[in-house]
Amino acid sequence: MKSDLLITDICLPGKQGEPPIIENCCLTINGDSVQQIGPAADFDKVEAKAVINGRNQLALPGLVNTHCHAAMTLFRGLADDLELGQWLNEHIFPAEAKGVNPDMVYWCTKLAAAEMILSGTTTVADGYFHEHEAARAFADAGMRAVAAQGVIDFPAPGVPDPADNIAAADRFIDHWQDRNPLITPAVFAHSPYTCSGDTLQGAKELARTKGVPLFIHVAESRYEPDMINNMQGGSPIRHLDALGILDPATVCVHCVWADEEDMDILAERRARIVVCPQSHLKLASGIAPLQTMLTKGIRVGLGTDGAASNNGLDMFQEMDICAKIQKIRSLDPVAVPAAEILKMATTGGAAVLGMEENIGTLGAGMKADVILVNLNTPHLQPMHGADLLVYAADGADVQTVLINGKPVMQDRELLSFDLSEAMQQVRRLSDNITP
Amino acid sequence: MKSDLLITDICLPGKQGEPPIIENCCLTINGDSVQQIGPAADFDKVEAKAVINGRNQLALPGLVNTHCHAAMTLFRGLADDLELGQWLNEHIFPAEAKGVNPDMVYWCTKLAAAEMILSGTTTVADGYFHEHEAARAFADAGMRAVAAQGVIDFPAPGVPDPADNIAAADRFIDHWQDRNPLITPAVFAHSPYTCSGDTLQGAKELARTKGVPLFIHVAESRYEPDMINNMQGGSPIRHLDALGILDPATVCVHCVWADEEDMDILAERRARIVVCPQSHLKLASGIAPLQTMLTKGIRVGLGTDGAASNNGLDMFQEMDICAKIQKIRSLDPVAVPAAEILKMATTGGAAVLGMEENIGTLGAGMKADVILVNLNTPHLQPMHGADLLVYAADGADVQTVLINGKPVMQDRELLSFDLSEAMQQVRRLSDNITP
Repeated sequence: MKSDLLITDICLPGKQGEPPIIENCCLTINGDSVQQIGPAADFDKVEAKAVINGRNQLALPGLVNTHCHAAMTLFRGLADDLELGQWLNEHIFPAEAKGVNPDMVYWCTKLAAAEMILSGTTTVADGYFHEHEAARAFADAGMRAVAAQGVIDFPAPGVPDPADNIAAADRFIDHWQDRNPLITPAVFAHSPYTCSGDTLQGAKELARTKGVPLFIHVAESRYEPDMINNMQGGSPIRHLDALGILDPATVCVHCVWADEEDMDILAERRARIVVCPQSHLKLASGIAPLQTMLTKGIRVGLGTDGAASNNGLDMFQEMDICAKIQKIRSLDPVAVPAAEILKMATTGGAAVLGMEENIGTLGAGMKADVILVNLNTPHLQPMHGADLLVYAADGADVQTVLINGKPVMQDRELLSFDLSEAMQQVRRLSDNITP
Repeated sequence: MKSDLLITDICLPGKQGEPPIIENCCLTINGDSVQQIGPAADFDKVEAKAVINGRNQLALPGLVNTHCHAAMTLFRGLADDLELGQWLNEHIFPAEAKGVNPDMVYWCTKLAAAEMILSGTTTVADGYFHEHEAARAFADAGMRAVAAQGVIDFPAPGVPDPADNIAAADRFIDHWQDRNPLITPAVFAHSPYTCSGDTLQGAKELARTKGVPLFIHVAESRYEPDMINNMQGGSPIRHLDALGILDPATVCVHCVWADEEDMDILAERRARIVVCPQSHLKLASGIAPLQTMLTKGIRVGLGTDGAASNNGLDMFQEMDICAKIQKIRSLDPVAVPAAEILKMATTGGAAVLGMEENIGTLGAGMKADVILVNLNTPHLQPMHGADLLVYAADGADVQTVLINGKPVMQDRELLSFDLSEAMQQVRRLSDNITP
C-alpha cells in the first residue's frame, strides 16, 4: 500500500468492550484523507513518503470549535470584569470602530488560527465583518473554517450601508464557494435584536439559495426579549421560528435562556445549537440547559466565542469547564459526562456544521484532520481513558496537528505560517487602539 | 554586589499608575532569598555566579495552592461523573483501602509535585495519611509544602487505631518541625462529620501547642448538617466555633455552604478559608460565596483539591474557573475581578498559611519562590496586563520555576528529580489498583 504519510506507534481510544487505550497502532494518510487506521500489525506493507513517530501520543480527530469571532483576539483582555452594556458600549464598540479593518481582520484571525491549531482545533466556525480577510487568513494558515460574513442592521466594518448587508454576504459567498477545500462560506446574522425580521428572512433566504449554513446569536442574555423589536411567539427562539428561519442548516448560538418550548421547537426543526460556556460565565449570561438539549436529541456543538469574552480559544479548557458547570447547574455530578463533551467537540461539532461525513471522527475515507496528544506528562498519569482528557488535558498537550492531510504543527512548532510575524503584526495593531 | 543568581531582561507587572507591564527588568537571588528586583539599569554592578535570560518572560511570585491531597493523583480519572456517595463508597474508598501505603504516598505525591512545579505552583498545603512520605516527597522535589497529617475517627492508612490519630499527628510534627526549610508540618482534621467534637478539640489543641495550622474540610456539601453527630450552633461552621477551634491558624476548606452568620463568625475569629472551585463544580457541591467572604475581609486562598476530583493541579486553570463561576453565582460580570483572583493565588494564599512575610510577593528579602511566564505565545497577544494571565494563560506557559532560591524547572524541564521514574512508579501503582 502506498501512502503519503504513515504515523507509527500511536495510541487510540478503545471502543466499547476494549481497553480504554489501545497502544501500538498506526494511521496512514493519502492525499487529504485517512487511508487506514488500526493495529500496527496491519501496516506491514505500507510504503510511505513520510513518517511521523507517534510514540506515547493519542490520536484523536481534530477538535471542532463551532463558534468564534477570530479577529477579536485584538481585544483580548482589553476590558475584563465589566457589565455587558459597559463592556460593549464603552470598550468593545469604540475599539471596533477604531480598530476593525481588513488588515486587522487578516492578522488577528491568523493569530487566532495559530492559537487554535496549537491547542488541537482543526475546524472553526467563524463569524465577523471583513470575513473575506478572515477566510484568507484561515486558508493561509492551513486551517479548516466555516467562514460566515456578518449581517447586521447597523453600519458595520466594510458594510457602511446596512441596506447592503445581505448583498455583501452574497458577494462573499460567491467568491469563496468551491474555491478552497478548507473554506466553506456562510452567513452570520448577528442576532434577533440587531437584525429586523426582514433582514433575518433575507439572510436565511440567501443561505438557502446558496446551500450554506446560517449562524445567529440567540437567547444569550435574560434581557434579550426586551431588546427585540416586534418579537413574535413570546421568546427570541420562537421569534426565529415565526420568521421561518429554523431548519437543519440554522445554527443557534448560545441558547442560554432557551426554555422547554424553545428546545422542543429546535428539536422539531432539527436546528443546531452551539453553547459557549466560558463566554456565558465571563459575561454572566448564565448556564445553558445542555443536558436537556442533549436529551431532546438536538445536535449541540461547543464554541469558544471570541477571545474578548473568554479570553482564550483552547477547546480543551472549554470542554473541561463545560462538563463542570453542567454539574453545578443541576447540582448533579452525573450530568453531561466527559465522554459526551468529547463527542460534542468532535462528531457533535461536525454535525452542527453539516460536515459529519467528512470530519469529526477518525476513520478510513474521512478527511485527515488529526491531532496527537502527548500522554507522557505528569498531569495525564495514570491514564484510565480518553475521557480523562476532558478534565485534565489542556491545549498545550497537543504535539502534532494535521489538517486535510497536511502537518500544520509538529512537536509544538507551527509549520503553516510565520507565527512571530503574526504576533508582531497584532502587537502593532494593538498599539493603534490603546491609548 | 555579589549574587548567586541574576535573572536578566524580565518583565514585571506594573504597579498602580505605571504601565501594566514593565519591560527590561532584573532580579537577583542570594541564598534562599530575593536580593534585588527592578529596572535593569540598577543591576550594572552585579557579580552573579549564574545567569538566567528571562527575555519575553513575566516574573511573578510562585503560586500558592492552599488545598491538595497530592497522593490522590493515583485516582485521577479513575471514577468521573458520579454521585458523591457512589464516588466515595464504590470507587475512592475501596481504591484507597487497596492502594494507599507509604510507597504510594511517596511516589504519587512526587508526581503531583512535578505537575504543580510544571504549572507554576511553588507552595502547596497538603493533607493526607502517611503524610511523612508526602513531606519526604515534597522535600525531595524541592517544593515548599505545609504538610498536614490526617486525623479521622476511622481506621486510616498508617493509623489503624483511631484512638492513636492525634498521637500520630503529634509524632509527625515532632519529626518535621524545623527539620527542612521547605517543610512546615501541620494537622488536617478531616471534617466535622468524620471527627467527633473531642477529636476536633484534641487536634486543635495539638496544633496550638506546636504552633502549626489546623486544616479542616467544612460546609462542603449541603447535606453536611445531617451528617454531623451532636451538631452545635445550627451549622457546621458554628459547630466548629462552639468547639472553640476557630482562630487565625485554623484553615476552613470549602465553605461552599457558609451562610452570612457563618462568615461573620469566621471574620471575627480571623479564621482562614480555602475555596476549591473546580472540585466544587465537579462534585456538584455548589459555588462558594467568595465575593461575600472577601467583602467581609476574610483571608481566602485558592486550592485545587486532590486530582481525583478536579482532575488536574494547575492553579492557572483554577484561577480562570474561579473568576468565571463567581460571575455566574451572582449573574454579575463585575464580581471578583481577575486581579483579586491573582492576589488570592499569591499573597492571599501566603496569608492563609501564615507565611505572608516570606512568600506570596516578589520583593527584596522575601524567599525566592519565583516563576517566569512566557509572554511570547499567541494566546497571550496582545498583552494588556498581568490580569490577562487569569483568563488566558495556563500552567504550560510557565517556563522556569525557582523555589527557595533554587531552579527546580528551567525551560519546561524539571531539574529537581527524575520525572520519568516518578511517572513509571505511578503507572506501576495504578496497575495494582485497577482490575
